[in-house]
Amino acid sequence: MPDLNAEIISVGTELLLGQIVDTHAATMAQILAECGIGCRYRQTVGDNLERAVEAIRLAMSRADIVITIGGLGPTQDDLTRPAVAQALGDKLIREPEMESRLKGILAKRRLRWMDSIGVQADRPESARFIENGAGTAPGLVCEKNGKAIVSLPGPRAEFDLMARGPVRYYLKGRAGDRVIHSHVLRVCGLGESWVEKEIAHLMQAGNPTVAPYAKTGEVHLRLTARAASIEEAEAITTPVSEEIRRILGDAVYGVDDQPLEETVLADLKERRQTVAVAESLTGGGLAHRLTSVPGSSDAFLGGIVAYDVGVKKGLLGVSAEIVDRSGQVSAECAQAMAERIRSLLGSTFGVSITGNAGPTSDTDGKPVGLVFIGVASPSGAIVDEQQYRSTREDIRNRAIQEALVTLRKAVRGK
Amino acid sequence: MPDLNAEIISVGTELLLGQIVDTHAATMAQILAECGIGCRYRQTVGDNLERAVEAIRLAMSRADIVITIGGLGPTQDDLTRPAVAQALGDKLIREPEMESRLKGILAKRRLRWMDSIGVQADRPESARFIENGAGTAPGLVCEKNGKAIVSLPGPRAEFDLMARGPVRYYLKGRAGDRVIHSHVLRVCGLGESWVEKEIAHLMQAGNPTVAPYAKTGEVHLRLTARAASIEEAEAITTPVSEEIRRILGDAVYGVDDQPLEETVLADLKERRQTVAVAESLTGGGLAHRLTSVPGSSDAFLGGIVAYDVGVKKGLLGVSAEIVDRSGQVSAECAQAMAERIRSLLGSTFGVSITGNAGPTSDTDGKPVGLVFIGVASPSGAIVDEQQYRSTREDIRNRAIQEALVTLRKAVRGK
Repeated sequence: MPDLNAEIISVGTELLLGQIVDTHAATMAQILAECGIGCRYRQTVGDNLERAVEAIRLAMSRADIVITIGGLGPTQDDLTRPAVAQALGDKLIREPEMESRLKGILAKRRLRWMDSIGVQADRPESARFIENGAGTAPGLVCEKNGKAIVSLPGPRAEFDLMARGPVRYYLKGRAGDRVIHSHVLRVCGLGESWVEKEIAHLMQAGNPTVAPYAKTGEVHLRLTARAASIEEAEAITTPVSEEIRRILGDAVYGVDDQPLEETVLADLKERRQTVAVAESLTGGGLAHRLTSVPGSSDAFLGGIVAYDVGVKKGLLGVSAEIVDRSGQVSAECAQAMAERIRSLLGSTFGVSITGNAGPTSDTDGKPVGLVFIGVASPSGAIVDEQQYRSTREDIRNRAIQEALVTLRKAVRGK
Repeated sequence: MPDLNAEIISVGTELLLGQIVDTHAATMAQILAECGIGCRYRQTVGDNLERAVEAIRLAMSRADIVITIGGLGPTQDDLTRPAVAQALGDKLIREPEMESRLKGILAKRRLRWMDSIGVQADRPESARFIENGAGTAPGLVCEKNGKAIVSLPGPRAEFDLMARGPVRYYLKGRAGDRVIHSHVLRVCGLGESWVEKEIAHLMQAGNPTVAPYAKTGEVHLRLTARAASIEEAEAITTPVSEEIRRILGDAVYGVDDQPLEETVLADLKERRQTVAVAESLTGGGLAHRLTSVPGSSDAFLGGIVAYDVGVKKGLLGVSAEIVDRSGQVSAECAQAMAERIRSLLGSTFGVSITGNAGPTSDTDGKPVGLVFIGVASPSGAIVDEQQYRSTREDIRNRAIQEALVTLRKAVRGK
């Protein structure tokens, strides 16, 4: 069987105005991938008959399966049903059986019947209905001249039930024994260009494909295999995944949805060690990220948000001499903060972050984006210096990420 | 001037696989709407030169302005630069000045230069660069034969800075005297249904439109006016905005992009007062949110993340009797935490958050979602109790929001 290709068309003026984010298209794309059906294009059009017809015709010219989302409701701006009929050259016919079912649904909800609701019982001649488990508008499957158009409604519950149920089942049947299976390797502490250079030879192979994505302070490598089954896909992916781990070594910290803070906490727990944090620049953001992991209390004790210089000198107990000599944004201050929080809370590791997130240079003249990260451990303290060039929010996020990378190295003794 | 039309093209195989949701396209669509530029189509293509060129040509055939998002990075699958050049019939030329700027950025970050990075200094002949305030890849503006192509990078911070800054400015300039102008009124402490019921009569009018959006613990009301100028739009919007403020009173805490933490800090600064926080459940999230505001150090001193019970009893100094009798998740503990942090840091207000975010009941049997928020002030302490029913992340976010609402009331003496 040749590879099948699908194209997704999202219908709705609210999408073109940016009033809602198109999560349905992403869900549909995931389902296609799981069914082993390729997707080369997505389109979005407003509630306009002419443009919807044009989009469907374009999609039919280049894909085997066209999937429309939205525009199946009963109101005047719901135009997908006539658009599909027109694109196929079909007439719309009223299905009396569907009409009486809709009347039944409304009666059950004690809502009044209106003739406009009846348009949902219309279907293009070559279509059959897909049941709607959460609302009135049925979906459509039209098969004509070897192509298929599948239409789903836009309201979330209706779309989700239909997409993950009957539509997925239908697509799997058309695709036959074929899956597209993905894994993500998560890499920290190396730049995207560097990672790509090291694994360039693996990016040439067609199956699995290897694609790098740059994230805040980390790189994700997505390995995607096409195969007849999940097992076969794993068999294709595993050797490549192992080769990448061999090349990048310890920088590969996790897989799929596992965030960096989770692996760092797992490393600590495994060693029965603990961490405490002292944050200035990031104002509690590192602690907040660590405590986002369920069960983090096994390894994370707590910390001090030492935003004001008085809190650094007072509660945290950094010596006034260090602050006055080197400033709050300095390697000396970062080191003292890490050592003090470790000693105050009795943790194995103490991590500190101090810096200037802007928008302007601080009173000591330290530039925006200058960050010091300290890690104190039983074997002494290290300080990492960074100079970022970004927004306040991004500088803070990068500093948190870098602190996690530095802590991970210290825990692993590297 | 005739109405301008734009078309958005999102580039990235990860979008076609449904691995990420396309929030950038929605942001861009909002910006176009605010500039009074129509948008009739959006397209999404993968990292494929031929298809990207085809998409750009199709867009140029039906829109005045084509906006591409993504694919400007240095790796092999970043193909937007050559695709734009090919669609325009332009050659790509290397800009030595940009190349040396990129080298400077890498040197500052102590990253090694590689030739592949240099492609980001390439531009189509008819293009000029848009500065990237958060990364290396510059954006592009190409003007040719009365049409424009604007290309933005995909990483979030880079896209956001460029889209809301220079690109928005450029689009406003092209759009001329025609605006779709929006204002947001931000409401806290009232439910969406209640807000909607109270202002229902204002939602009937066509210009401005009034649309409510439910956010975590708050409601945003978007007022949108169409007019020939910003001034005219303001004149249409202002009376409606004033009427809403009259109806909802003090619950309207801010406008547009002003977050709740900013108004709370402004209230404190105005009164020359300060705040310190003691967090358990939210692990530094409240402090992180307060310090996201530039200049927050004028009113926010710092805090303690008392995640472990030993930190509550030790560093924070909550009496062991309270913890042992009532548990860490209790009104007594919340009150003591708020009072202790206020006294330790010498702030006007002390705020505490303790609770159970799940996934399971805690050792004292306190249910998931039970949260206590304490506020200590010169006139005594109050404790707010909440029982949320949601995910770990959402419970933590709601608790932070509720703490800000409670602090705001205390500062305003209500």
